[in-house]
Amino acid sequence: MSTRRITEHDVPALALGCALLGTGGGGGVEPEVLATTRALREHGPVPVVTLADLADDDLILPLSAIGAPTVAAELLPSGAEAGAIRRVVEARYGRAVAAVMATEIGGANGVAPVGWAAGLGLPLLDADGMGRAFPELQMVSMNVAQIPPSAVVLADTVGNVATLDTVDADWAEQWARALCVASGSSAVLADFVMTAAQARTGVIAGSVSRALRLGTLLREAADPLPALIAELGAAHLVTGKVAAVARRTEGGFVHGTATVRGTGPYTGTEVVLDLQNENLRARQDGRVLAVVPDLIAVVDAYTGVAVATESLRYGQRVAVLSWACDPIWRTPRGLALAGPAAFGTDLGAADAS
Amino acid sequence: MSTRRITEHDVPALALGCALLGTGGGGGVEPEVLATTRALREHGPVPVVTLADLADDDLILPLSAIGAPTVAAELLPSGAEAGAIRRVVEARYGRAVAAVMATEIGGANGVAPVGWAAGLGLPLLDADGMGRAFPELQMVSMNVAQIPPSAVVLADTVGNVATLDTVDADWAEQWARALCVASGSSAVLADFVMTAAQARTGVIAGSVSRALRLGTLLREAADPLPALIAELGAAHLVTGKVAAVARRTEGGFVHGTATVRGTGPYTGTEVVLDLQNENLRARQDGRVLAVVPDLIAVVDAYTGVAVATESLRYGQRVAVLSWACDPIWRTPRGLALAGPAAFGTDLGAADAS
Repeated sequence: MSTRRITEHDVPALALGCALLGTGGGGGVEPEVLATTRALREHGPVPVVTLADLADDDLILPLSAIGAPTVAAELLPSGAEAGAIRRVVEARYGRAVAAVMATEIGGANGVAPVGWAAGLGLPLLDADGMGRAFPELQMVSMNVAQIPPSAVVLADTVGNVATLDTVDADWAEQWARALCVASGSSAVLADFVMTAAQARTGVIAGSVSRALRLGTLLREAADPLPALIAELGAAHLVTGKVAAVARRTEGGFVHGTATVRGTGPYTGTEVVLDLQNENLRARQDGRVLAVVPDLIAVVDAYTGVAVATESLRYGQRVAVLSWACDPIWRTPRGLALAGPAAFGTDLGAADAS
Repeated sequence: MSTRRITEHDVPALALGCALLGTGGGGGVEPEVLATTRALREHGPVPVVTLADLADDDLILPLSAIGAPTVAAELLPSGAEAGAIRRVVEARYGRAVAAVMATEIGGANGVAPVGWAAGLGLPLLDADGMGRAFPELQMVSMNVAQIPPSAVVLADTVGNVATLDTVDADWAEQWARALCVASGSSAVLADFVMTAAQARTGVIAGSVSRALRLGTLLREAADPLPALIAELGAAHLVTGKVAAVARRTEGGFVHGTATVRGTGPYTGTEVVLDLQNENLRARQDGRVLAVVPDLIAVVDAYTGVAVATESLRYGQRVAVLSWACDPIWRTPRGLALAGPAAFGTDLGAADAS
């Protein structure tokens, strides 16, 4: 049994790591740092377990917030959502949940499950369903592994709870998104509730440890940017200034583009990022430098700290990095679910610009 | 125990009565006549029971289709919706449903429950939750009587099923509408699942018999329009030609206005109808002649057969009738839920015209 526990003192490092793996999305981590720190203070540290610690039929509850990041910073959760979801899930399965899992390690959704686990008195599984952030809920490794979405349970800030039995994960996304928008573009969601035996075939292990390691490096390294690039094995696409940001919030998503104009050794290089909550693609002179499912992060040029899509501002000094995704996303079904073709309209529209 | 049964031969009369009580809305009855006739042929007649026939703890399943009438005529139900809903409701309550009830006697929603009851092998309760048609699902007598909406269960044509535990009926409407729109503006819904004891405090009794009686009168009377006016105790607002129709389908509803220009003894009279799926209000020279919750029907000038909102056409010869609603709608809570103020935007916008 792992003896690792997450305390309130780990939250800043975890948040830095999650923000980086969020590739611009998954929501700004700041509100979650406050909420999670408070939850850990109130309920005590959260034990971190690995899949090896769980029995085959232990029930795992993957949780995430769903909505537009620009809204999430203003319409805060009520705090009762995870408890309401757990009650519905346990009633449905007729047994207790053994561990919470972050559906998405990237961004706020990597941090919030720690607070939810603390509030529920449950351990957190050292794993997630993306290894990064993605904008839609069918884009998870459990879906690549063909684990059914099972009942999707969604709770909003008002106290409403929906149990969705959909024919597939695409319909789960469509319905959950519709409810999320109806509730002000902010809700908490459980999907792909599964046993540990199922999870062994379809989750990305070690995600929480990885986020903590990356965040600790950013806090402790003397020269964080080169240390980060070395740790990730990342390509350094550009360092420069944010020269343009075009963003709109629509249908529960943030869409748009951002342009980074190189400075110093990168003078003359201009990288355009295509966004849908996350950084989907980086282009230079129409040439694709990196694209989903690989990870693209915009980080502060000096501190290496990730800049979220909704925090991009004209004139910021940033570096753009890219690195390889988890191998599960390079499988044919992984690429079909979260490769460039899965983002057709956004990436297509950007091509025309 | 009542021995009344609805057979396939009753469907045309039932449909005429429901169309009239639909006050222009609740969906055009024609597709339901076909589907319900087929269901009765396949599964046999449906027994009609009254509240007096049921034991206090017998479970009643109110069913209705939800969506835009203009869409309902094109995106047909799969036929599996009612069965999927029943399974979820029976699993949740841990016992069998005793009877189906029409949530809304007006329009297609008064006819379809007969076919659903036949398919489920259940009797139909001689009652409904409106005594007419209304466009939103919180506008039911069960809500006036403060029966909780309980779990709202919605099934779409694809096979998706949602169970909604909302804090109140307004949220049930908001969430069900969002899912309905996400599924192409057509779905089947159960809400206010209740015991017979609860139903005795909050349903409108005799609605199915009434629709059958009105429809039979229209089919059999030598001079249907005067006979209908006498039976309903209706005010005869105008007889004339449809001179203008303005309609738009938006957010799952049909909105608009229709103008009827008087002919013969009504020459010089022009009646404007404000619509939101149903006929909400009749005006003449800016003066309100009739308004929700009272019933306003546009009927064929010769046959007395109701004309649905989505079937209004320029040049049609019609009469406009109005008559009093069930007394439950004149209570303070009834008026708050389904009186003119509950239709604020539509009726407000029409005032400006």
